[in-house]
Amino acid sequence: MKKITSFILLTLMIFPLITSAQSFPKESFPEGTFPNEHNLDGAQWPRIDAKGNTYFRVYAPNAKNVQISFRGPMTREADGYWTYVSPEPEAVGFHYYQLVIDSVNVADPATKSYYGMSKWVSAIEIPEGLPYDKTQNVPHGEIRMKKYWSEMTQAWRTCYVYTPPQYDQNKDERYPVLYLQHGGGEDETGWVFQGRMGNIMDNLLAQGKAVPMIVVMDRGYASLPGAAPAPRFDDSRMNAFLAGATAPAAPPAAPAAPVAPVAQRPARPAAPFRFQGVFPELLVKEIVPMIDATFRTKTDRESRAMAGLSMGGMHTFQVVMPNLDRFAYLGGFSGGAGGADQIDTLYDGIFTQPQKFNQQVKLMFLSIGSGERPERVKAFAEALQGKGLKNVVYYESEGSAHEWLTWRRSLREFAPLLFR
Amino acid sequence: MKKITSFILLTLMIFPLITSAQSFPKESFPEGTFPNEHNLDGAQWPRIDAKGNTYFRVYAPNAKNVQISFRGPMTREADGYWTYVSPEPEAVGFHYYQLVIDSVNVADPATKSYYGMSKWVSAIEIPEGLPYDKTQNVPHGEIRMKKYWSEMTQAWRTCYVYTPPQYDQNKDERYPVLYLQHGGGEDETGWVFQGRMGNIMDNLLAQGKAVPMIVVMDRGYASLPGAAPAPRFDDSRMNAFLAGATAPAAPPAAPAAPVAPVAQRPARPAAPFRFQGVFPELLVKEIVPMIDATFRTKTDRESRAMAGLSMGGMHTFQVVMPNLDRFAYLGGFSGGAGGADQIDTLYDGIFTQPQKFNQQVKLMFLSIGSGERPERVKAFAEALQGKGLKNVVYYESEGSAHEWLTWRRSLREFAPLLFR
Repeated sequence: MKKITSFILLTLMIFPLITSAQSFPKESFPEGTFPNEHNLDGAQWPRIDAKGNTYFRVYAPNAKNVQISFRGPMTREADGYWTYVSPEPEAVGFHYYQLVIDSVNVADPATKSYYGMSKWVSAIEIPEGLPYDKTQNVPHGEIRMKKYWSEMTQAWRTCYVYTPPQYDQNKDERYPVLYLQHGGGEDETGWVFQGRMGNIMDNLLAQGKAVPMIVVMDRGYASLPGAAPAPRFDDSRMNAFLAGATAPAAPPAAPAAPVAPVAQRPARPAAPFRFQGVFPELLVKEIVPMIDATFRTKTDRESRAMAGLSMGGMHTFQVVMPNLDRFAYLGGFSGGAGGADQIDTLYDGIFTQPQKFNQQVKLMFLSIGSGERPERVKAFAEALQGKGLKNVVYYESEGSAHEWLTWRRSLREFAPLLFR
Repeated sequence: MKKITSFILLTLMIFPLITSAQSFPKESFPEGTFPNEHNLDGAQWPRIDAKGNTYFRVYAPNAKNVQISFRGPMTREADGYWTYVSPEPEAVGFHYYQLVIDSVNVADPATKSYYGMSKWVSAIEIPEGLPYDKTQNVPHGEIRMKKYWSEMTQAWRTCYVYTPPQYDQNKDERYPVLYLQHGGGEDETGWVFQGRMGNIMDNLLAQGKAVPMIVVMDRGYASLPGAAPAPRFDDSRMNAFLAGATAPAAPPAAPAAPVAPVAQRPARPAAPFRFQGVFPELLVKEIVPMIDATFRTKTDRESRAMAGLSMGGMHTFQVVMPNLDRFAYLGGFSGGAGGADQIDTLYDGIFTQPQKFNQQVKLMFLSIGSGERPERVKAFAEALQGKGLKNVVYYESEGSAHEWLTWRRSLREFAPLLFR
């Protein structure tokens, strides 16, 4: 068996080398469509058109049912392919998705895989066509994988650290630091790959729009030894949705306002609720000192910022608000804001003390996509501004949802306001 | 539609946060088994036992047929799960695999995904249980993503660069450089994740077994503008194999010597054959100068080495042998060696000139797993040694196949011999 296995493996490793491009015959494509930018080199499907329609095509002649997650049923063609065309344009931006092959949720092997939804999944993107997050002919920073020991969690961890262009050449220069966090079900690679933070920072710096800074991205999950592991994404919920979505009768009426079913909404706590785990404490007690000991950082509070998206926005508020002696800037992208009705009680009432707040908080940036639920965040920001709090900035990402385009744009708007 | 999509996406992003660990009830596992080390946090399957048997379990109640690639048929259980237990222990080391769900080859969502076989696939590992490639309590280097423009290919590229511990502190020290390449169907991330090169180098350095060095890992595919893209892995060949493997009758007799079918073996060329693309030229003309301009490198020939596995081994010979004015060390791991019958003609006959060879080649390292076809490589190494070529080292990795355990061990044996 070992010999056979070895033979098989050897033979299969050779395949990529001898499989010629002829395996991918010329196909005809719907007019005006182009390959999804997250496809693997040479993969022609899924495709997109200029209006934002999506076109999927998957070869599965022996499957009974194939679906694209978050979308309607696919059509089985005579040639063994299953196809799906969006009934109308999809929202601009980056959307995770999976194939669902006979009820099994998997990444589409035609695309790159990203860590999101607590596993490796695919992505399709409706491009906005702007250059700010693309690789351009400008000086580029490096993104470094930095390994460190966490005493609190008794575990080795890895963070990704962006160092700006010329960091190695300017040997005596010290830099301010932005701690930048991903959302639920993602990890320290989210901002690097899905978020394109390197391109965004490089381009801002080349245009003189931002101050050179170090950006630290860590994994927003941390548990004390012996604690239960972080929760994982449950495909059965998505499959239940898809089953409903594909039922022939009674399509759901478009809701007047998107409101999550009651059973899925935890009662709103009086203070921003804490996700399980000890990441906020870990960041303050271990990550910041480790970064300051490793990189040429400025260590005063006005040289330290934190931002994050969704769960990372909540982490940001949990870290920064009780530690204003160490941080002066914070950003909550699609997460982290409280309710306008809470501002008297949150964080020892600091929002009711304009003088103290204005002195300590150089920037509180709140952003959200117009395609999610912007009203609550906007009302919160306006209520804060109405209390005389300067440096509260609200940004709404036009047309984008709870996804990475909202957060790329948020970083583009947020970073220029830091360390001024 | 946009509103609904946003709502769905928003709701789904929240799921990971509210899905409790209760979704994963206590299961009973085969005695003595433990989760595959490449599983996602909390995923219990696939599993392995101490003998190296593998145990797969996949929930696919609506599928007609589920297989684990490179392995026999799975059994459909009454509860909707499909199971597979290896009939005997598998070879030690790291094995790529895919799920095949009703003939569609996909990554197993229970594991991390790695770029191999020209796509993102899963891995299962039979552990050898040694510490040399594990994260240990020693100083750690950084691995940096470095972006650069390639004039030859008119494209932005990214390489991964290992800088040894204290690189940032020893501001005036310069380091030798090892260029380290992946195999066919892989990319610049292969050595970082599958190959664990950071751990291997950190541990060698901590033990004083290797000289501190910079290690550069690039993507071994490069095409001139307008050229055909690199070939991609063709799943249909694997499926054809699996179909054969699962046929009820006539299992193939164990071959006396593993020989690939004639149709798949290109006639052996007179000189090491070139894969399409211009990567070897790109490395010499653009990557080496870029690295020397970016990092604190030593730039003499005796401070420059190259090694690679499989296709990367061939690239190594293509780069180093015609450029001995720039490189003095080379390693071919499971690839790159010629045949013993070729030594008189290869590389302008340098193998027949011991004096010239011994003066120029400080190390020619040839390695292979005992589970692949070691005879040819061993014979080549011995023929070279028989010609009076010093510094030809042959290493055989016991029990491992054409996979990453062979190459991790090869790096562990190779790196200590460099730059002495």
